[in-house]
Amino acid sequence: MSCVRLRIEEEILAEIKPSRLEREKARYTAEKAVNLVKRVLQDLGIRDARVTIEGSYAKDTWIRGNLDLDLFILLHPRNCLELIESSIIDKIASRLSAAGFAIEMRYAQHPYLRMLVNGIWVEIVPGCAIPNPDTPLTAVDRTPFHRRYVVSKTTPEMRDEIRLLKSFMKGIGVYGAEIAVQGFSGYLVELLVINYGCFRSVLEAAQSWRPPVVIDVEGHYHDRRVLVKKFKDAVMIVVDPVDPDRNVAAAVSRQSLARFIVASMLYLREPRRDFFHIPGRKEVHAPAPGSVLAVYGHRAGNTVVALLESPRRLSPDNIWGIAKRTLRAARRLLERWGFSVIDAAAYASEDGQRFIVLVELESRTLPLLQLHLGPPAWSTDNAQRFVEKYRSDETAVGPWITEDGRLAVARRRKYTDALELLHSRVDEWLPGSAKGFRVQVSTLPGVVDKLQGDELAWLLETGYKAPGWMKPRR
Amino acid sequence: MSCVRLRIEEEILAEIKPSRLEREKARYTAEKAVNLVKRVLQDLGIRDARVTIEGSYAKDTWIRGNLDLDLFILLHPRNCLELIESSIIDKIASRLSAAGFAIEMRYAQHPYLRMLVNGIWVEIVPGCAIPNPDTPLTAVDRTPFHRRYVVSKTTPEMRDEIRLLKSFMKGIGVYGAEIAVQGFSGYLVELLVINYGCFRSVLEAAQSWRPPVVIDVEGHYHDRRVLVKKFKDAVMIVVDPVDPDRNVAAAVSRQSLARFIVASMLYLREPRRDFFHIPGRKEVHAPAPGSVLAVYGHRAGNTVVALLESPRRLSPDNIWGIAKRTLRAARRLLERWGFSVIDAAAYASEDGQRFIVLVELESRTLPLLQLHLGPPAWSTDNAQRFVEKYRSDETAVGPWITEDGRLAVARRRKYTDALELLHSRVDEWLPGSAKGFRVQVSTLPGVVDKLQGDELAWLLETGYKAPGWMKPRR
Repeated sequence: MSCVRLRIEEEILAEIKPSRLEREKARYTAEKAVNLVKRVLQDLGIRDARVTIEGSYAKDTWIRGNLDLDLFILLHPRNCLELIESSIIDKIASRLSAAGFAIEMRYAQHPYLRMLVNGIWVEIVPGCAIPNPDTPLTAVDRTPFHRRYVVSKTTPEMRDEIRLLKSFMKGIGVYGAEIAVQGFSGYLVELLVINYGCFRSVLEAAQSWRPPVVIDVEGHYHDRRVLVKKFKDAVMIVVDPVDPDRNVAAAVSRQSLARFIVASMLYLREPRRDFFHIPGRKEVHAPAPGSVLAVYGHRAGNTVVALLESPRRLSPDNIWGIAKRTLRAARRLLERWGFSVIDAAAYASEDGQRFIVLVELESRTLPLLQLHLGPPAWSTDNAQRFVEKYRSDETAVGPWITEDGRLAVARRRKYTDALELLHSRVDEWLPGSAKGFRVQVSTLPGVVDKLQGDELAWLLETGYKAPGWMKPRR
Repeated sequence: MSCVRLRIEEEILAEIKPSRLEREKARYTAEKAVNLVKRVLQDLGIRDARVTIEGSYAKDTWIRGNLDLDLFILLHPRNCLELIESSIIDKIASRLSAAGFAIEMRYAQHPYLRMLVNGIWVEIVPGCAIPNPDTPLTAVDRTPFHRRYVVSKTTPEMRDEIRLLKSFMKGIGVYGAEIAVQGFSGYLVELLVINYGCFRSVLEAAQSWRPPVVIDVEGHYHDRRVLVKKFKDAVMIVVDPVDPDRNVAAAVSRQSLARFIVASMLYLREPRRDFFHIPGRKEVHAPAPGSVLAVYGHRAGNTVVALLESPRRLSPDNIWGIAKRTLRAARRLLERWGFSVIDAAAYASEDGQRFIVLVELESRTLPLLQLHLGPPAWSTDNAQRFVEKYRSDETAVGPWITEDGRLAVARRRKYTDALELLHSRVDEWLPGSAKGFRVQVSTLPGVVDKLQGDELAWLLETGYKAPGWMKPRR
């Protein structure tokens, strides 16, 4: 494995590494935020809490323009949950707001808030100062341990390698553990570089990855099989160095893993800028409906699109989860009724109120008649029932006896049109979680005018099918 | 098992049993033919030959209007083959012709002739008077043993039962061992009645038949498994009582066996005249092309028909053999290229010069694009080749990576039209034995005007698909 950086990688790095100005600004913003929060805690009479900065800033692994400033309030484990449940975060919010800062409340597993300081959003997250990372009280309590681990295991060079790998993963669409992506979290990227040494050696290692991929950075386990059994169904298992019971790669889907392997393979053969996400590079602006249809060509009429609108805003993970469930159910229904699926994908809009399910079929319609094989003649009771059923069915042709001795009829398909099928059986593919959503089903040309900019941009990419890094086209 | 005849069966029997007049005529025709041939043999100086009458007349199992008068010349085994090879049959033919009889030469495994006596065709067949049926010198030498066996094992009642079963098997299209039918020979029908006692009990027994059906009338074998192994691939095994090494049912196809089982099942539930062939009943006259197309309706355009014409007359078994081979190859080709076959059938005209191959498809055309799955991403060498191949293919959409981590493209089908496929690859479905035949391939509407009366009648039946006895319709 070679850890020499190519010239192109040096160039990319120059574009993605935070500038001195950005660093400076981050530093005094973090300091200011910490001081502010410390004062508020004092005012509230909370004395035994620690305030730390986490996130990619604290680990020095962030990409220019993608700063994460996570301010953690680590409460004493004795009364930590009590304080959180007594809405301490609301009290902090109102104090900071009163001090003149812009504040937003957010809700993950427990509430947190965002505060705008010097034009930078700082997330303020309460947690518990647990003594050991394997006994967390809240979902975020391991974070300081992760930060300390990454900081202690990386050199400045390695942090640049982490930046390259993040930019690569963003570029090929596999960065992030959220349901929309089901890919590699920031911490997972950091662990991969720690494990393999550099950007390039991760890509090289990926050439021999086969699911389940098992990586045990700190060698907590001696036997790969124990891990495969412990984390069954995972396509990738990366043991958390600070808590061996946790799989850092639990979110990675088969598709994301595969995409990373193929992209690595292509990049190693022919390194190109297309693979990387470079901050502020191109602002993809929304295509016109007509140019989306042009990319699909005759396929547009065989592409079925369902547009679903929620009566209320949902969190990204929530709406993406519903979108993916809907997609799976719609696809299964179409396949069960004999339609041949070429590709299927879903997209949830950033506003959290709409999502699209798209299924491209070989053909939107199927032939009217279909061969339906019955029992063999020598299964006489079944043969009898089959003949009885179809001899009186005037819409069926037959029955007759095939060369291999089975009964058969040609019968009409109940659904020859995919749209009709989806309209008639909405309740079979619409998950319970999408009850009350407004549903519109049409072919692509019938729905394209109702779509938003980001939806059109996604449709365009889905129409090309090959990502730009796989088949350069523009 | 019950051997009581239903009233309908008595009625059928009255219509299919030879009349007294027909019997009389057969008797004196047979006598006259025997005397004629004996005199010719004497004239030719052949003294140690026996002359016998075989066929359904000799066994008294024939159906009115379907008389078989087979006159056998059983030569002494010492010089039998010698005499046959020295074209003794030509000499007999010329003598009989000189005596003023209409004569035709025919060729099976060895030559025989037909002579018109009192308006009845008598077949004159040379054979060897072998002492034991298990060591025949020619293919016909067992015939006298079969005749004696059937005569010795049947009562007059049983012979009527045989007539009923023959009429039933003719009616449902499974009577005859020739390639056109691949069904039950006359001798096999006789053995079934001998084994089960009567018409009805054969039908009842068939309800528990499962291929391979094994019947050992004389109990030559103790173990069914020995027979199944000895006659492997046979769907029905009926041990010849006069030669245990022979399977009388070797010609029976899976389809004919199945048809008999189903027809028996339906007849036992609801006895009707439709199941029987009654001599001289309906003269099916050829339908007009338009009425054939009307039966197919919209299916006609999805029905592909090949019409093949031979430069010379062929024997029925020969042309039927070629027709069935052609059918199998054409069907396989269509299926290999993704077409869905509903039904496929062949028909050879009685003139021995033409045959039709018909394949009804769900649709004559297929969608332009087709999903083509490649290797999984982690099969990196194959993945690499797949991407290389398709990234430069401008007619393919993709490649992309599927949910389960495989590479995929949507590519154009080489053939979207079944006719185009059959035209382009004639050499892949036309068997060597049909080289030099004139080939026309079209959909049914395109070819129907070129077809003959018997071909149109067959097309009509194939269009109905359900035989009349299965789904009464006229």
